[in-house]
Amino acid sequence: MTVDVQEIEEAHDRVKPFIHKTPIMTSETFDKLFAAGKKVYFKCENLQKTGSFKIRGAMNSVLKLKEENPNATCVMTRSSGNFGGGLAYAARLHNLECHVLSPSTGSQIKRKCAQEYGAKVSLYDGSFKESQRDSMIEQIQKETGAHFIASSAQESTMCGQGTVGLEILDQVPDVDAVILPCGGGGLLGGSATALKSRNPKIKIYGVEHGNATNAKLSFDQKRLTQPESLPKTLCDGLGNTTLSDLTFDHILKYVDDVISVPDEETAKAVKFIMYRMKIAVEPSAAIAAAVLMNPENIEKYFKDCKNIVVVLSGGNFDYINHAAMLL
Amino acid sequence: MTVDVQEIEEAHDRVKPFIHKTPIMTSETFDKLFAAGKKVYFKCENLQKTGSFKIRGAMNSVLKLKEENPNATCVMTRSSGNFGGGLAYAARLHNLECHVLSPSTGSQIKRKCAQEYGAKVSLYDGSFKESQRDSMIEQIQKETGAHFIASSAQESTMCGQGTVGLEILDQVPDVDAVILPCGGGGLLGGSATALKSRNPKIKIYGVEHGNATNAKLSFDQKRLTQPESLPKTLCDGLGNTTLSDLTFDHILKYVDDVISVPDEETAKAVKFIMYRMKIAVEPSAAIAAAVLMNPENIEKYFKDCKNIVVVLSGGNFDYINHAAMLL
Repeated sequence: MTVDVQEIEEAHDRVKPFIHKTPIMTSETFDKLFAAGKKVYFKCENLQKTGSFKIRGAMNSVLKLKEENPNATCVMTRSSGNFGGGLAYAARLHNLECHVLSPSTGSQIKRKCAQEYGAKVSLYDGSFKESQRDSMIEQIQKETGAHFIASSAQESTMCGQGTVGLEILDQVPDVDAVILPCGGGGLLGGSATALKSRNPKIKIYGVEHGNATNAKLSFDQKRLTQPESLPKTLCDGLGNTTLSDLTFDHILKYVDDVISVPDEETAKAVKFIMYRMKIAVEPSAAIAAAVLMNPENIEKYFKDCKNIVVVLSGGNFDYINHAAMLL
Repeated sequence: MTVDVQEIEEAHDRVKPFIHKTPIMTSETFDKLFAAGKKVYFKCENLQKTGSFKIRGAMNSVLKLKEENPNATCVMTRSSGNFGGGLAYAARLHNLECHVLSPSTGSQIKRKCAQEYGAKVSLYDGSFKESQRDSMIEQIQKETGAHFIASSAQESTMCGQGTVGLEILDQVPDVDAVILPCGGGGLLGGSATALKSRNPKIKIYGVEHGNATNAKLSFDQKRLTQPESLPKTLCDGLGNTTLSDLTFDHILKYVDDVISVPDEETAKAVKFIMYRMKIAVEPSAAIAAAVLMNPENIEKYFKDCKNIVVVLSGGNFDYINHAAMLL
């Protein structure tokens, strides 16, 4: 299974009426402090409806489902975070019932977001084996007739997330490099497909938190390697998920490298962005900016790049209760 | 001394090349929860250069000074907060030295902002008598030859702040009401002058924190009344300053009413805006949104208004150290 840029463009036409074309922000201070001589553009998906890019893929999947199956009445997904909220919003807008199966270890604030958009959220024990989780999915489907929509391992979802790449091409036509967070890989795989297909010269970098071994290790070994357990990290949006065959195939084909960032550096980026740029981004998003705040990364990856786009993928986070970590 | 809308338009032409035309944001969730049937537009001056609208007035005053006195080499102001940062930025851009005299009780983060933009900041004891403060100003002027620029009680400054009103007319042409925070009154007086002169039907409301007695009392009594001492408040940008004759005259002429908001309600607004709208605004700015979060205010002031603009005037605040207050 592969997707191509035409399918991502079709997805864009499909979702455009229902989502924000999020703004690009710049910061003279960021450039001066961290990327002298370069221009950094922040693609603000934290200002997207439901607070993250996830609505793009959710919306595309819901719209495709309605095209192919006009009588569908219910959707469901498994999500530890933002995809639950995105799907709940898309489902409500198109009069579908929505169920979200969420690990007990996931973000409470993101779970609440899905509930506020009308989803019924069921919890499963985060330490459950996959088979037990899958039987809960089957149970919900049996009871509700829900169509399952995957949070990244589904072509329609990945095409929706890839629309971020298309908007970057439109908003920053002379872009030299793009940095995107990588959890399930839908945003990275989809956007890399769009960007590289339209301009193979653009460098594409994925970012993973320092405790993870999934994307970086798989990319380096050119073979998808699943971790034995999910690592603890400030980046809840990345730490609770792993790559799929679908997303990994596209990442391997279109991405230049995967960069690791430790949580301490990510926390500094959250704080810088809040205090200086006045926007709230979650750690799983700020991690992409943190890449540039380490001079070694600038030297290693961006020496010949002038215009760099950082995708701030979302903003759903319990800042106040994490204040100590951000101090 | 009065200013008129032509002078504010001239100020706009003067400052436009150097400032952001800040975006308007909307929030479906805010409208649904607090202003059903209305549309609320947030004018995001927290995303302005230096993190607040204050740069508008500072930039206009600096540019006027350079027109009238091309040999000027140094400016100074007295500011507890954002005007210091705005003036420092404007001065540096036009190769002027900048001195800021700041009360020891003012915001540390705003003081740091002025310093980072190159200003020399001197502190005075917040409990000083006015005469002692004034002799410090004289001393700095004697040593440096600095031209004093007032943070609101100066026509060129107030005209600069009024450019927010002009942008609102352009960005939300069918605006029915505008809510603006009121400290020194430059933003409120200047913007009210611009808005009412162009469309007398627009309702203009100033907002003051609940502990203050300056603007609300003066407005109700139609006579400028200075408080005996400055009250403690979460809204540092409003609490450390008072109206001047210049700003009060324009407020009395063009403003419909002044509304009081207690700090508890302002704290809720800071939190809502951060968690739901993903932008960081300081209490002195969020107070304008807090007005609409109280149903009594909607009933009393906005019953017949459809399109309401809330001016989020700035975003410089120590969120993390105030986390307990925001919980």
